[in-house]
Amino acid sequence: MKEYFKVDEWKIIEEGFDPHYNKVAESVFSLGNGRMGQRANFEEAYSGETLQGNYVAGVYYPDKTRVGWWKNGYPEYFAKVLNATNWIGVDVWLGNEQLDLAKCEVLSFRRELNMKDGYLQRNFRAKTASGKEVDVEAIRFCSMVDDEAGAIKYTITPLNFEGEISLTPFIDGDIVNKDANYDEKFWDEVSKAIDTDNGYVQLRTKKTGFEVATAMKFTVEQEGKPVEIISNPIQKEKYIAAEVKLQAKQGQSITLTKYAVNVSSQNYPAAELVTRSADVLAIISAKGFDTMLAEQAAAWAKKWEHNDIIIEGDAAAQQGIRFNIFQLNQTYTGEDDRLNIGPKGFTGEKYGGSTYWDTEAYCVTFYLATAEQKVARNLLLYRYKQLGKAIDNAKLLGFKDGAALYPMVTMDGTECHNEWEITFEEIHRNGAIAYAIFNYVRYTGDEAYLTDYGLEVLIAISRFWAQRITWSDGRQQYVMLGVTGPNEYENNVNNNWYTSTIAVWCLKYTIEAIGKVKEANQPKYNDLVAKISFREEQECEKFADIIGKMYFAHDDKLGIFLQQDGYLDKEQILVKDLPATEQPLVKKWSWDRILRSVYIKQADVLQGLYFFEDNYDLDTIRRNYDFYEPRTVHESSLSPCVHAILAARLGDIERAYQFYLRTSRLDIDDYNNDTEDGCHITSMAGTWMSVVEGFGGMRVKDGMLSFNPLLPHQWKAFSFQVGFRGALLKVKVSGDGVLIKNLSAADHKLKVYGNEVFVKANNQLIVNAK
Amino acid sequence: MKEYFKVDEWKIIEEGFDPHYNKVAESVFSLGNGRMGQRANFEEAYSGETLQGNYVAGVYYPDKTRVGWWKNGYPEYFAKVLNATNWIGVDVWLGNEQLDLAKCEVLSFRRELNMKDGYLQRNFRAKTASGKEVDVEAIRFCSMVDDEAGAIKYTITPLNFEGEISLTPFIDGDIVNKDANYDEKFWDEVSKAIDTDNGYVQLRTKKTGFEVATAMKFTVEQEGKPVEIISNPIQKEKYIAAEVKLQAKQGQSITLTKYAVNVSSQNYPAAELVTRSADVLAIISAKGFDTMLAEQAAAWAKKWEHNDIIIEGDAAAQQGIRFNIFQLNQTYTGEDDRLNIGPKGFTGEKYGGSTYWDTEAYCVTFYLATAEQKVARNLLLYRYKQLGKAIDNAKLLGFKDGAALYPMVTMDGTECHNEWEITFEEIHRNGAIAYAIFNYVRYTGDEAYLTDYGLEVLIAISRFWAQRITWSDGRQQYVMLGVTGPNEYENNVNNNWYTSTIAVWCLKYTIEAIGKVKEANQPKYNDLVAKISFREEQECEKFADIIGKMYFAHDDKLGIFLQQDGYLDKEQILVKDLPATEQPLVKKWSWDRILRSVYIKQADVLQGLYFFEDNYDLDTIRRNYDFYEPRTVHESSLSPCVHAILAARLGDIERAYQFYLRTSRLDIDDYNNDTEDGCHITSMAGTWMSVVEGFGGMRVKDGMLSFNPLLPHQWKAFSFQVGFRGALLKVKVSGDGVLIKNLSAADHKLKVYGNEVFVKANNQLIVNAK
Repeated sequence: MKEYFKVDEWKIIEEGFDPHYNKVAESVFSLGNGRMGQRANFEEAYSGETLQGNYVAGVYYPDKTRVGWWKNGYPEYFAKVLNATNWIGVDVWLGNEQLDLAKCEVLSFRRELNMKDGYLQRNFRAKTASGKEVDVEAIRFCSMVDDEAGAIKYTITPLNFEGEISLTPFIDGDIVNKDANYDEKFWDEVSKAIDTDNGYVQLRTKKTGFEVATAMKFTVEQEGKPVEIISNPIQKEKYIAAEVKLQAKQGQSITLTKYAVNVSSQNYPAAELVTRSADVLAIISAKGFDTMLAEQAAAWAKKWEHNDIIIEGDAAAQQGIRFNIFQLNQTYTGEDDRLNIGPKGFTGEKYGGSTYWDTEAYCVTFYLATAEQKVARNLLLYRYKQLGKAIDNAKLLGFKDGAALYPMVTMDGTECHNEWEITFEEIHRNGAIAYAIFNYVRYTGDEAYLTDYGLEVLIAISRFWAQRITWSDGRQQYVMLGVTGPNEYENNVNNNWYTSTIAVWCLKYTIEAIGKVKEANQPKYNDLVAKISFREEQECEKFADIIGKMYFAHDDKLGIFLQQDGYLDKEQILVKDLPATEQPLVKKWSWDRILRSVYIKQADVLQGLYFFEDNYDLDTIRRNYDFYEPRTVHESSLSPCVHAILAARLGDIERAYQFYLRTSRLDIDDYNNDTEDGCHITSMAGTWMSVVEGFGGMRVKDGMLSFNPLLPHQWKAFSFQVGFRGALLKVKVSGDGVLIKNLSAADHKLKVYGNEVFVKANNQLIVNAK
Repeated sequence: MKEYFKVDEWKIIEEGFDPHYNKVAESVFSLGNGRMGQRANFEEAYSGETLQGNYVAGVYYPDKTRVGWWKNGYPEYFAKVLNATNWIGVDVWLGNEQLDLAKCEVLSFRRELNMKDGYLQRNFRAKTASGKEVDVEAIRFCSMVDDEAGAIKYTITPLNFEGEISLTPFIDGDIVNKDANYDEKFWDEVSKAIDTDNGYVQLRTKKTGFEVATAMKFTVEQEGKPVEIISNPIQKEKYIAAEVKLQAKQGQSITLTKYAVNVSSQNYPAAELVTRSADVLAIISAKGFDTMLAEQAAAWAKKWEHNDIIIEGDAAAQQGIRFNIFQLNQTYTGEDDRLNIGPKGFTGEKYGGSTYWDTEAYCVTFYLATAEQKVARNLLLYRYKQLGKAIDNAKLLGFKDGAALYPMVTMDGTECHNEWEITFEEIHRNGAIAYAIFNYVRYTGDEAYLTDYGLEVLIAISRFWAQRITWSDGRQQYVMLGVTGPNEYENNVNNNWYTSTIAVWCLKYTIEAIGKVKEANQPKYNDLVAKISFREEQECEKFADIIGKMYFAHDDKLGIFLQQDGYLDKEQILVKDLPATEQPLVKKWSWDRILRSVYIKQADVLQGLYFFEDNYDLDTIRRNYDFYEPRTVHESSLSPCVHAILAARLGDIERAYQFYLRTSRLDIDDYNNDTEDGCHITSMAGTWMSVVEGFGGMRVKDGMLSFNPLLPHQWKAFSFQVGFRGALLKVKVSGDGVLIKNLSAADHKLKVYGNEVFVKANNQLIVNAK
């Protein structure tokens, strides 16, 4: 854990420049607007350590799989988030010296991410090798209002010299993915042009044929006054630029304002992209930078109004949760059901793909509570539309009759991943996809979704389980062999409790959903039966047989569920007795040693207890928590949040607080030493859950919200808002009790500490603290 | 299974040319002499499907590891057998047409491997596009007498034309490994020269710095008379050639005799390689091709005198065993203790490395019985010399205090492999290395080997087991978690019976060996104790504790050992009920499906019963054989031989015969559809064992050989020879009984069918058949 960034409730602040930390800072200061995004690379040249990253949502490349040892069933390609055209670049020359912080003395440096208003600002003073000193201020953002656009205001002031300063704004599509399997470039040039103060580059991805036009337009001011632009146009492969040379005077600033646009063939015919980009450029440059920035602040204010979590008395905790909420909103807006939430969002290339089970297990709840219903629905529809490919994927692995196995990692529904122990065996992901349907319906009450989409997915998933689960003659029970549970520090185990539990739950929920849909709309049900050749009686009988005769690993003496068969054969050495020098295990131990140890990467049995809390009494939850928590190393970003929620549920507020800090400040403090690759976007939804479901104790049951809040002693108060079935509620927890504010125009009934309370429209009440 | 090659007792014959089968034929017709070897590529150009392969023993390249997902502990490099300079090439032009069988009409074609005399002969008649017809005869061999040399006699006869024929013998080092991870070329040029009738190329491997000079010298005859050579020298990168143009007359043959030499810096200073190659060339060209070939036949006659197995009445079986013995002798002669036996020998690149546990588990027995004692001893010393690296390798995986884990695949003692489930978990290889020491001492009686080398290896291996085996509180027994047994169709299992059994056996044998060495030579024992900091009392106490309290998976109801925990939870569908269309599983099923099935790739429990037969009664062996055999798919070349031996032991002669055919004709009949990559050299020793230990029933016990022969009804008789502690015995089994011939100068006592018999020096006796 580092404390590199300054603690501030609304900002992330870097004071002073540490080149060794630059890649971490580039990740943390990333910008995005759901449609496009970028790492916080510098505008001007930088020859030091950096990971260049600009991304356009939904644009990917199927990179040919690379493995050491091929296994039958591996996908041919890994669809990767693409590093896209760099639109932020502005080359700066002071006479014959290029401005490059790696080659200057950095006299001062400050970078801040303004989360409230949604922009990134960088100020520095640098001295070149020849002794020239300049002040630079760079402000930029990806517009939430014009979501195909971004803008930069780049101001440079010579402090101790006068003479020629040249500024060269450029668009550079000649970029690479650092993680390319065969050092291949993924983009081809389609066309480009450069004029005095504007230009564009249009590229096409190889194989997938996505086209993206990236265009820029710029203005220059000197001493605050517009300068008529005389520029030298430059063209290279996939690159255009316009060099502007100015005579600078000591102490007088030069400002370049650069407007840029990314438009993609996902949204327009490829032939219209250039025109479209010019149109958007015209609109935004007419608004001007300051208006755009004001609109940006207003758009963010609206987001914060609904999404903010306020923590009083603990700035580090406050900063952490805001950073998480900010990044989630930058990554996915829910406008487009073709998009999903990549593990790194727009902050890095790592993990490629865009969709993991993280979306269903962690993110859906966040969007259900903080965004319009259609956002979570779009996430569900994304999977519904990929059902055919999930069925194909299952076929490849030997399943039949409409059984579906959703991919571990995907862009378009096709499996991308290629580690047998994960790709083929981490099949609990199917369960999370079913759980998200349940969660969505439970939260929204939108049962029609089951009829129209949900049940078709549920049956396909249940068909998979019914084939994947096999009969053991020896046990006279059903078993599930050869799986990898959520704890990826175990591979190819038998009877992973979590996977078996969610599988059997799926079968039950499918039977229940069949009943509901038949009752709600028999004709539509009949259509579905015909469409998917569902033999209801026979298949449900099989489902029921498995439900009744499934084996679940457990230990009666300890009164716990067993993560998998044989877990108790391991040497039971707790994490507290594991030297710190041996951690993180993934970097210190060979894989076999990790596998045969007790150590748990992320919640596994506990993930199941979190999902299906209602099915277990508190003592059972406690026994399992007390057993597994001391064995968990939390080397997955998805782990601490679940432990935080369970700790809070069990009243262990101090542990819950520690887990909360770890999850909320994971990237700010570079807890796992890997933030340089990008931020852990999906786990940020887990952070939100650890506040709202953990400290807030929020649950949904029988169509009603309930809260069981706890206040960490480090906090004076905390508050959050949730939308629920048309209502908007604000919950504030303080020493004075629990304030429930109904911000909507209808009365609302909910439970606090187990008691029903009734909050009138636009009114509030206080329930005494427990 | 194909029947492409003709059945012949002493030859492999290809009659007619099938280009689709060419790569298989290239493997089967491979030549070698222990020092160098090659696939049966054509001398003249061939633009069709081919896998070029020339190899120099012990010359390797550490190719940078390539994996999809890196695991901590993976080796940085995979040391690969190198494709080396092509010395067989002779370009042939008929006027302006290049002779290339892929572009000719092949009017007749015959290729035969003469195993008796050790050479490869190819005859064909071809018609070019313009209608020119030629007869070609090419004979070549790798000399067993001059083991750095090879020779080719290449005769071409124009049948329907006269005019210019140009012959261009060349040396080409500009070759690639097809399995290079990064498409890199592994050789750099050091020097080269070309003169009228001779030339050389000297290359150096990147990184490892091995140097090899490859030189040639040639003569030309026309109408049987020497031609004075006038040639056009050609040089390219890593390539030299001399073009000879001749005026050919219809019906009159032209013969080019090419002598070639490979000398390596492993054996001479690099600076002397050119001189040395010239010296060898001078010697062999002075002998001339015919003398060399006669010497070759004589050398092979000597080998066959000791090694041949004669099967009467079954030509396919006879051809099979001879092919196996021939290839084993071509691969490894035991002269050089730096060399070992690669899975593909000199017949292909696949699997890289040179040393697998195959050497200890299969090959040592073959060489013990058929070669001088020093050959098996050299194989043992190879591992002894790599003990330090095995200790380093164990350290990398978290072991300490002198524990050794020998690599899964190696060239020089360093681990090369990079699949976690194999590299880190297929640790039973350590057991095979200990077993080979036991086997060697048992066979030879050379107990001094334990004192000088063996015990040091045994203690290091036992130290590994003592750390790798852990205590289970639940069971109150020791367990071994997370291993892959010999059956690689299971990964990361707990308590694999074979691995646990051989580990505990190692501990016992180590304790026994300590006793022997102390008794034999206490001072040397004391030296060893000091050298390796052996705390005898404490460490042996731990060994003994494990021996006493080890858990072995078993099922009392079935009376069998369990391959691993949970094996009986699998769906028990036998191989006979598995559709043929689903096989081979490795090509038809995804990996997870294979893993959770009952199907066994190769003997696992049965391998243990084979090794430690004396510890189990016949009923136990039978119950396990009857249980596991029907579940075994034999998709490893190492599987059928063990099943053959056990089937014979159990009196199931018909099954033993079927397994024998499968193992002995695996490559000739391309049983597993993979012979194009090279022949399965190490499993050929298993074939030998299936005759001698299977049908011959040979065992060694208490320093004495015993035989329990069985005669398959398909055979009239079979005979083999074994050397044993200075004696040479010939055993012939026929309907008349078992003939034991003592070919040595001392009387010999042995057992036949359980009864001691005494055979006088240079005498014989017959024991009636059982």
